[in-house]
Amino acid sequence: MIKVSILTIGDKVRIGQITNTNAAWLSEKITRLGAFISNHITIGDDFDLMVKIITEQIQQNDIVITTGGLGPTHDDITKPVLLKIFDDHLVFDNSTFENIKELFEKQNRTISERNKLQAYVPSKAKILPNKVGTAPGLLFELPHKAIFSLPGVPSEMKYITENSILSYISKLIITRKEDVILYKTINVAGIFESNLADLIGPPDEFLGDASSLAFLPSYKGIRLRIGTKQPDFESAKKELDRISEIIYLKAGNFIWGEGDEDLSFEIGRLLKEKKLTLSVAESCTGGLLGGEITKISGSSEYFMGGIISYSNEIKINHLSVNKSTIEQYGAVSYETASEMAKNIKNLFNTDIGISITGIAGPTGGTPEKPVGTVYIGIAYRDEIEIKKYILGIDRNINRERAVGASLLLLYNTLKNYF
Amino acid sequence: MIKVSILTIGDKVRIGQITNTNAAWLSEKITRLGAFISNHITIGDDFDLMVKIITEQIQQNDIVITTGGLGPTHDDITKPVLLKIFDDHLVFDNSTFENIKELFEKQNRTISERNKLQAYVPSKAKILPNKVGTAPGLLFELPHKAIFSLPGVPSEMKYITENSILSYISKLIITRKEDVILYKTINVAGIFESNLADLIGPPDEFLGDASSLAFLPSYKGIRLRIGTKQPDFESAKKELDRISEIIYLKAGNFIWGEGDEDLSFEIGRLLKEKKLTLSVAESCTGGLLGGEITKISGSSEYFMGGIISYSNEIKINHLSVNKSTIEQYGAVSYETASEMAKNIKNLFNTDIGISITGIAGPTGGTPEKPVGTVYIGIAYRDEIEIKKYILGIDRNINRERAVGASLLLLYNTLKNYF
Repeated sequence: MIKVSILTIGDKVRIGQITNTNAAWLSEKITRLGAFISNHITIGDDFDLMVKIITEQIQQNDIVITTGGLGPTHDDITKPVLLKIFDDHLVFDNSTFENIKELFEKQNRTISERNKLQAYVPSKAKILPNKVGTAPGLLFELPHKAIFSLPGVPSEMKYITENSILSYISKLIITRKEDVILYKTINVAGIFESNLADLIGPPDEFLGDASSLAFLPSYKGIRLRIGTKQPDFESAKKELDRISEIIYLKAGNFIWGEGDEDLSFEIGRLLKEKKLTLSVAESCTGGLLGGEITKISGSSEYFMGGIISYSNEIKINHLSVNKSTIEQYGAVSYETASEMAKNIKNLFNTDIGISITGIAGPTGGTPEKPVGTVYIGIAYRDEIEIKKYILGIDRNINRERAVGASLLLLYNTLKNYF
Repeated sequence: MIKVSILTIGDKVRIGQITNTNAAWLSEKITRLGAFISNHITIGDDFDLMVKIITEQIQQNDIVITTGGLGPTHDDITKPVLLKIFDDHLVFDNSTFENIKELFEKQNRTISERNKLQAYVPSKAKILPNKVGTAPGLLFELPHKAIFSLPGVPSEMKYITENSILSYISKLIITRKEDVILYKTINVAGIFESNLADLIGPPDEFLGDASSLAFLPSYKGIRLRIGTKQPDFESAKKELDRISEIIYLKAGNFIWGEGDEDLSFEIGRLLKEKKLTLSVAESCTGGLLGGEITKISGSSEYFMGGIISYSNEIKINHLSVNKSTIEQYGAVSYETASEMAKNIKNLFNTDIGISITGIAGPTGGTPEKPVGTVYIGIAYRDEIEIKKYILGIDRNINRERAVGASLLLLYNTLKNYF
């Protein structure tokens, strides 16, 4: 097994001013190659501690990847730390300087002395080009060890990883003939976790000793994660295929995709395949459902648009909800959700219309309609289906869950009625 | 200084299937009390490694907080690990069982044997009630040390932290008379980083030895983070106030708030104060701007709604953009953005209308209008202002940046013209 430690450097992350998305992204990509992530460690901009932790992790792992601390300010001390660890000194690197010049020219900016400093790199490091920023990645090689140092800006970290690191690790796994750990995720929707477990039956009956199956439920559905450890990449893939075939046989009706795909992607695929168009009428989600659907490149083929009818006036005047419906049943009701879905479908002339109206909270709840009450409607042909949910108490989690639930309803409708 | 280590337990986080938001949230809350976060460490569900790392971190810190691994499945091994470390055994806790029963009754579910197991807790631990889930928090106290163990579900982790942990740490800092490290963040918008640095001048002139100032730029503006280490909470707060007063004197015109507030919150405050209403017309962002604005509880006071005009037909038929405008200038143009903003304002009868139209990518770019080209418009009274941006190449970052830019434009308009 190739063991990899992910070190995140920076006070911003340490004190919680930003969430560490780099570690998750790197882990996901590297796990996919069959390497084993031993840990993620986040520490602040502290010279001695950085020397200590990086040195320790080099000893305990095959690969160490640091992100952060390569920028041009005085807080950025990853380079001095690496010079200390590897007993090295800086040299001017012309190709890095040319890259910095090019980037600045593109943006019509002049290079400051401080930016020039970024072209000085440790003499023992291989330079990993960074076409999207000024700090290149660095690679130090020791016998059986590799230490990668990357800038913390996610787009730059991703660029260098995709262009220089992933292939390096793949090659390492192959040449060293190391055991490989692989995972595969199968995405399931439209079924409760306990029913899915019954469908699949005792996993021990089809898992070998070297494999595992985990259920990861969320409000967007359930993900089944198969894991296996095998002597090489090919046998690991074969074992994953063997197990996933069994799961498809048992639960295929509820499987909509694999990997880290979003349900909105699969919905887009179905809409395109079936040549259907979609519109939305959103109240408490304020546009989030439209935002989620249009995350997918190419969504303009099937998503026409929507009306964010946050106020009752907009519901009445622009979405043609009957004033009396709102007066009699309330804006958060079966009846309003129903008119919203039907009307957006007709107004925007689409095959399917979806509506969301609810009480996101924290205020606005009543004993009959507590915070978290959400009605979701779907209109297609002459059908209307409405689902009522009682979600939680947190405003923004409720809004996300409402989006998740509406995608599930849309997905199930596409599968069952089109 | 009270030193705190944050340990995240679980393969899901280790292999990057989910991002570690718990560590950021905990760090932010605890840093605010004046304690020092030494590190975040993420490891998988590995018994021996968990014993090793938790033991090490107890030695090196005053407080260790673990999240994850307290659930009812066989992957959840934090309790056995703690039993091993503290040489303890499980006992049945009736108050925990009552809580589980109550939760299940509320949801009309019957308690399984597996769920009952969650009422067994280590005999040496204090139980930290969890009203929003079945696994209680655990507190082990050693001389001068405290080890908190929390479930990994964010809402449960937050509930227990807010109700049991934060006050514990505050008291500890006071009774031990430890040095306190505090931070204060000042949010700035509408000015370039370099110009802001010029306005503020050399920080050394007003920072003491024990204080620091960091610039944290993002596409939503710049955050200035002041940090200070002082003998107690009161002197730390005083020092932060002294420094922030200087910053307000120098850059007050561009400061819109403090802390982790969102610009959408401050915009909401201004709209309410000035009794103004708002509507949006979104194309490439597909509803994300409306989603961002309605994140704020109480936004229904000023946000009426919007039209997601993703397709040209919707722009023409429902947002009354002239067909000839789109034919002549394109859907992504100064002219279309202008009509969108003006028309949504008039149609929805609001004081302000905002429009976004752009090429989010990855496809759809041309030499004249590359991917990342976005026009943002704002209409108010008889004025229309349009800004053109060339953002990056990543679809979803472009969409977020467009939302950020439109909030900045709205904020500056509210400050300067109302």
